[in-house]
Amino acid sequence: MSRIRLGMVGGGNDAFIGAVHRIASRIDDRFELVAGALSSTPEKAQASGEALGLPRVYDDFKSMAIREARLKNGIEAVAIVTPNHVHYAAAREFLKRGIHVICDKPLTSTLADAKKLVKAVEASDALFVLTHNYTGYPMVRQAREMIADGTLGAIRVVQVEYPQDWLTVDQDIKQARWRTDPAQSGAGGSTGDIGTHAHNLACFVTGLEVESLAADLQAFVSGRQLDDNGHVMLRFKGGARGMLWCSQVAPGNENALRLRVYGETGGLEWAQEDPNYLWHTPFGEPKRLLTRSGAGAGAAAGRVSRVPPGHPEGYLEGFATIYSEAAEAIVAARDGGRPADEVIYPTVHDGLKGVQFVGACVRSSARNAAWVTLDG
Amino acid sequence: MSRIRLGMVGGGNDAFIGAVHRIASRIDDRFELVAGALSSTPEKAQASGEALGLPRVYDDFKSMAIREARLKNGIEAVAIVTPNHVHYAAAREFLKRGIHVICDKPLTSTLADAKKLVKAVEASDALFVLTHNYTGYPMVRQAREMIADGTLGAIRVVQVEYPQDWLTVDQDIKQARWRTDPAQSGAGGSTGDIGTHAHNLACFVTGLEVESLAADLQAFVSGRQLDDNGHVMLRFKGGARGMLWCSQVAPGNENALRLRVYGETGGLEWAQEDPNYLWHTPFGEPKRLLTRSGAGAGAAAGRVSRVPPGHPEGYLEGFATIYSEAAEAIVAARDGGRPADEVIYPTVHDGLKGVQFVGACVRSSARNAAWVTLDG
Amino acid sequence: MSRIRLGMVGGGNDAFIGAVHRIASRIDDRFELVAGALSSTPEKAQASGEALGLPRVYDDFKSMAIREARLKNGIEAVAIVTPNHVHYAAAREFLKRGIHVICDKPLTSTLADAKKLVKAVEASDALFVLTHNYTGYPMVRQAREMIADGTLGAIRVVQVEYPQDWLTVDQDIKQARWRTDPAQSGAGGSTGDIGTHAHNLACFVTGLEVESLAADLQAFVSGRQLDDNGHVMLRFKGGARGMLWCSQVAPGNENALRLRVYGETGGLEWAQEDPNYLWHTPFGEPKRLLTRSGAGAGAAAGRVSRVPPGHPEGYLEGFATIYSEAAEAIVAARDGGRPADEVIYPTVHDGLKGVQFVGACVRSSARNAAWVTLDG
Amino acid sequence: MSRIRLGMVGGGNDAFIGAVHRIASRIDDRFELVAGALSSTPEKAQASGEALGLPRVYDDFKSMAIREARLKNGIEAVAIVTPNHVHYAAAREFLKRGIHVICDKPLTSTLADAKKLVKAVEASDALFVLTHNYTGYPMVRQAREMIADGTLGAIRVVQVEYPQDWLTVDQDIKQARWRTDPAQSGAGGSTGDIGTHAHNLACFVTGLEVESLAADLQAFVSGRQLDDNGHVMLRFKGGARGMLWCSQVAPGNENALRLRVYGETGGLEWAQEDPNYLWHTPFGEPKRLLTRSGAGAGAAAGRVSRVPPGHPEGYLEGFATIYSEAAEAIVAARDGGRPADEVIYPTVHDGLKGVQFVGACVRSSARNAAWVTLDG
Repeated sequence: MSRIRLGMVGGGNDAFIGAVHRIASRIDDRFELVAGALSSTPEKAQASGEALGLPRVYDDFKSMAIREARLKNGIEAVAIVTPNHVHYAAAREFLKRGIHVICDKPLTSTLADAKKLVKAVEASDALFVLTHNYTGYPMVRQAREMIADGTLGAIRVVQVEYPQDWLTVDQDIKQARWRTDPAQSGAGGSTGDIGTHAHNLACFVTGLEVESLAADLQAFVSGRQLDDNGHVMLRFKGGARGMLWCSQVAPGNENALRLRVYGETGGLEWAQEDPNYLWHTPFGEPKRLLTRSGAGAGAAAGRVSRVPPGHPEGYLEGFATIYSEAAEAIVAARDGGRPADEVIYPTVHDGLKGVQFVGACVRSSARNAAWVTLDG
Repeated sequence: MSRIRLGMVGGGNDAFIGAVHRIASRIDDRFELVAGALSSTPEKAQASGEALGLPRVYDDFKSMAIREARLKNGIEAVAIVTPNHVHYAAAREFLKRGIHVICDKPLTSTLADAKKLVKAVEASDALFVLTHNYTGYPMVRQAREMIADGTLGAIRVVQVEYPQDWLTVDQDIKQARWRTDPAQSGAGGSTGDIGTHAHNLACFVTGLEVESLAADLQAFVSGRQLDDNGHVMLRFKGGARGMLWCSQVAPGNENALRLRVYGETGGLEWAQEDPNYLWHTPFGEPKRLLTRSGAGAGAAAGRVSRVPPGHPEGYLEGFATIYSEAAEAIVAARDGGRPADEVIYPTVHDGLKGVQFVGACVRSSARNAAWVTLDG
Repeated sequence: MSRIRLGMVGGGNDAFIGAVHRIASRIDDRFELVAGALSSTPEKAQASGEALGLPRVYDDFKSMAIREARLKNGIEAVAIVTPNHVHYAAAREFLKRGIHVICDKPLTSTLADAKKLVKAVEASDALFVLTHNYTGYPMVRQAREMIADGTLGAIRVVQVEYPQDWLTVDQDIKQARWRTDPAQSGAGGSTGDIGTHAHNLACFVTGLEVESLAADLQAFVSGRQLDDNGHVMLRFKGGARGMLWCSQVAPGNENALRLRVYGETGGLEWAQEDPNYLWHTPFGEPKRLLTRSGAGAGAAAGRVSRVPPGHPEGYLEGFATIYSEAAEAIVAARDGGRPADEVIYPTVHDGLKGVQFVGACVRSSARNAAWVTLDG
Repeated sequence: MSRIRLGMVGGGNDAFIGAVHRIASRIDDRFELVAGALSSTPEKAQASGEALGLPRVYDDFKSMAIREARLKNGIEAVAIVTPNHVHYAAAREFLKRGIHVICDKPLTSTLADAKKLVKAVEASDALFVLTHNYTGYPMVRQAREMIADGTLGAIRVVQVEYPQDWLTVDQDIKQARWRTDPAQSGAGGSTGDIGTHAHNLACFVTGLEVESLAADLQAFVSGRQLDDNGHVMLRFKGGARGMLWCSQVAPGNENALRLRVYGETGGLEWAQEDPNYLWHTPFGEPKRLLTRSGAGAGAAAGRVSRVPPGHPEGYLEGFATIYSEAAEAIVAARDGGRPADEVIYPTVHDGLKGVQFVGACVRSSARNAAWVTLDG
């Protein structure tokens, strides 16, 4: 089976997430990176492309889209890993030329862009995959499968959090600058960068949707324009309730994304920093620790595991699973088909909900934590 | 040094908390239980008193207060361990006769009672000690000392939670019945029973006071009259923000009280179920795990530890510390004095704040999670 | 039920273990300490006894034994908490006068003394209880019950260890001095002080006996006369094999006693520093975490638990259980009877095995880790 | 920089380790797999090669070595991932033709083969890299760096263990069959398969060499020809002592490789199943938890980390580091040079020591756990 020809927009030399996408695309050997417009200035774009030894290097994403669409063996898919405010403009150029898009989250920096991107996807034959990468972890799949199977009964309470500490003090580095700049990141700071991951994970695992939320956002570091800490109460459709905490000013937390779900008959707990474990706590029975590929782990986790139990898989493997799911869909699309039902990846609609979530947090907080709906 | 003569109100045969108070009063050998009115009916009170071999057994707390106050070697202090709605009436009888009161939490079942109890304490020469027992854990003292010393800088974020699972289904046992009955427990269910512990712990450790809160309370189990799950956003005086979660319907959680505090320069994390440890996470340095009596543990923890590091102390020892602090104060009061500054115990004012906290949660929730003040 | 009148030998002011025994004897309210010879010099013995407010204070254990045996309400039992080399001489005086003995471990400092003590117990009507206190932890009882019930199948492998770090450097304090002095401690250093605990725990939980062992002992700290680290391979009667590690020079370990047992169909793991948990790992099923008094905990653990699950019990409660088991036996003995079968406490025979274990370790190590039997 | 052309011997369809090597070789994009003889029968070799889409597929390793050596753009390196008894014969063919070898562990199934392989490497210009993959974990590098820097002072005690549970019962699957067959695996069972990893890890991290050992090996499962559990006492050159436990019959253990090292001034603890953490316990100071790429992690770990702290790396990334270190060496060798000093990978000499370790365990156990040297 030949590899899918992949291009990349953004992800130049000093960008952490570009390197992550490149590794993720290689792990399962389904893609080959052959073209790129890796930076926002032609000079840097050329330099970064050459440093990676890319066969075809472009000055900007538009010329790349135009040219690759015309090539006989041009790229079939593109990874967009720029700052948020560029996502829509870049994705549009590829989508309208039938090139599949794999896009980093959050979907866009504005709700208007998000809605236009949904339309662009709907108008295109190409696929759109959003790298909410935490949905690729095997034990996240396991949790989702267990809840869908009714293992917990009706869900009552969802506790999700994503604390970090790297913005505890003012950081004058590129990674920090664009994430704390409304023009590049959008209206949300910690809510946009990591709160969306928490929101997406909670919904992905439980199958629930947020009906309304009440948010109290703060910018603790002096002079910071965007929230660096957010407290959110959630009401889900169907009656479940939840809390969401995101923070970039919580010393001692690196990427401590953690989800706990409680239903009528049991609970589940998962933590991103130790992702190979899932606690299952059936009410009235001993706690059970499920391990990736170990006893008690089911088909949904097994499908996306690579090595035996006790050999930890990590962040890159979870990310790679998003790429491999995309590959399944892209290969099926070559013949006009669809992948098997078990193939799962975050879509543009999930991305829209994420942008709506950030917008709702900002609106609610501006109104003193009034309850607001996501599409309100 | 002779032991303090102690009486007990409530805590008969099938009451868990009465036995806890008795053990706690014995551990450091400062008290001797010599009298009791252990149940709400004379027959049961007599039977329970005899079963314990108490020298003096009474039918009810009032006759006990009257009689003991007249005895030459009557009780100097009384432990009140009844359901919440009896606390005020019982405490009043002893306070007005100069007998010190050690009372279980929450202070009372109604705000009116709480305010009357504050007055009764203020009008009495006797001491009033509230057994918010978690404040007796050595590593809780350690955390309080570190924050007071400025180790974390100004506090920004407080995350506190107290999930349990025992009311996940309807329980027809005495422990459950009175805790889910507004007439005996007051307006709060999980908020009153365990939310108050979480609130008290957060304030005790940080030295902060809640300015306002927004609460979303639920009763998930059909037919339950009081909340069994509560989500609360907190705003502290001085600018810190927090979240509080209490639940009795979270399967897999036994008494998972947990506090996390983040300041400008570091964080702390403590969990009741593993109470001999305290994480200290100074920003930009390796995480440190402090152990009770171990390296890095300070004077405040050392004062209330009994055994060497690595030998765990538990719930009963923490509870015993409250009794021993009370003993220090009672002994000092014998000569009209006050104990050393380092002697700390929860007071009637802490109890009033707890009742106000529960009331505020209920009021806020009734107003769709509007922000309310504690004394509002 | 009236309390058992208790005396104490050793345990004066600066002795950690004396205070532990006193608290342990109070927790369940079965004993009252009424007499003592708390130190090896009359002056210190008097001062320590007065400081504790003991009704009857003696200069030495022999005069105490003689006098108490003659009193109408003299002590029924005595706790012996001296350095090891005094155990036999003290115990003998009480045993021969029909006073029950509760004695700290290890049994004696020499094998000769141990054998004489066994005879003294056999010749006496009085009971002898050895405070191998770790056998009092509820989850240790749980593990023992599960293995006795066949939950693990035939036992194959036992891993037990007890590392500490307090003797990493030379310590010129009393606690260290007598423990590193062969005249007071016996031939074993870490093997005698903590290796015996590990050995006893492994045998208690599994029901197995050591057939032979091969030991490699070291004294890492310059000038130390007794081992401060020991590596031991174990062969149990019946075919199981094991390893035992004890150390007082392992930085970061406080009292990290830990037992792991593996059988044909499952495993168990328990750690003293977090004693309220027991891992049960049935082969081919998810790992299960049993909690004290929680779901999955059985009768043997429930019998010796005091508070609900999630409220940790600790070292002192486990120690108190040994005292309460002793109380059950003593009360039954008042009428010439025996306690219920479920009452368990370490005996003089367990103590003899412990002394033999230490002797075997020393002999084996002197012969370059040759295999030796315990009674060899 | 062009990718290194890689071939593979062994690792056909149903072989777990072949897939691992292929992913590991891709993660850092330094290799391209272009040729293979993936199975021991020509038919399976062809089928497996085609399934992977390899450009050049061979019937057997010898024809591959001959042909590739003649090609202008033939492979520069070969990965040998067959059962142990084939390692030598395969490696020899490539080494003598100047093709670098990356070989799975243990080095060989017999000591005779191991010694011949050492000679073959010494006689060749090509490099030989042994995939003792656990040495590639960042926090293992961190531990090694700290010990080399003297952070722990002189090493006294080493505790290393590698328990698994998959052979608790007789398993009639290919993975189990060859590992329990002396003809394919060599004289050691669990000692050869995982005990060598434990031995290698202990030596790699501490920089120490085993002087002698005493081993007690068992085959618990009826009919098993090779050890499935091994207890080993270690004496290191220079005076440190240790214990090593390997087991394949310890239910609840997946790949629970764990190393603890204690020196005069501190300790370190690392566990393969949670590889992103390293405990550092300086004597007399609070315990410190170092995290991969986090505060306190040094240059040696940072060099081989790919993603920010809190995003776990796992088994495949650690394995990939061995490949990337090999790539550094291979690229340097293109110009006749050597890689930078910081480039580290296990060599044929480490492999020889591993085979000697297994042999010593078997010899010692056959002599009732007599002390033997590795080269004895």
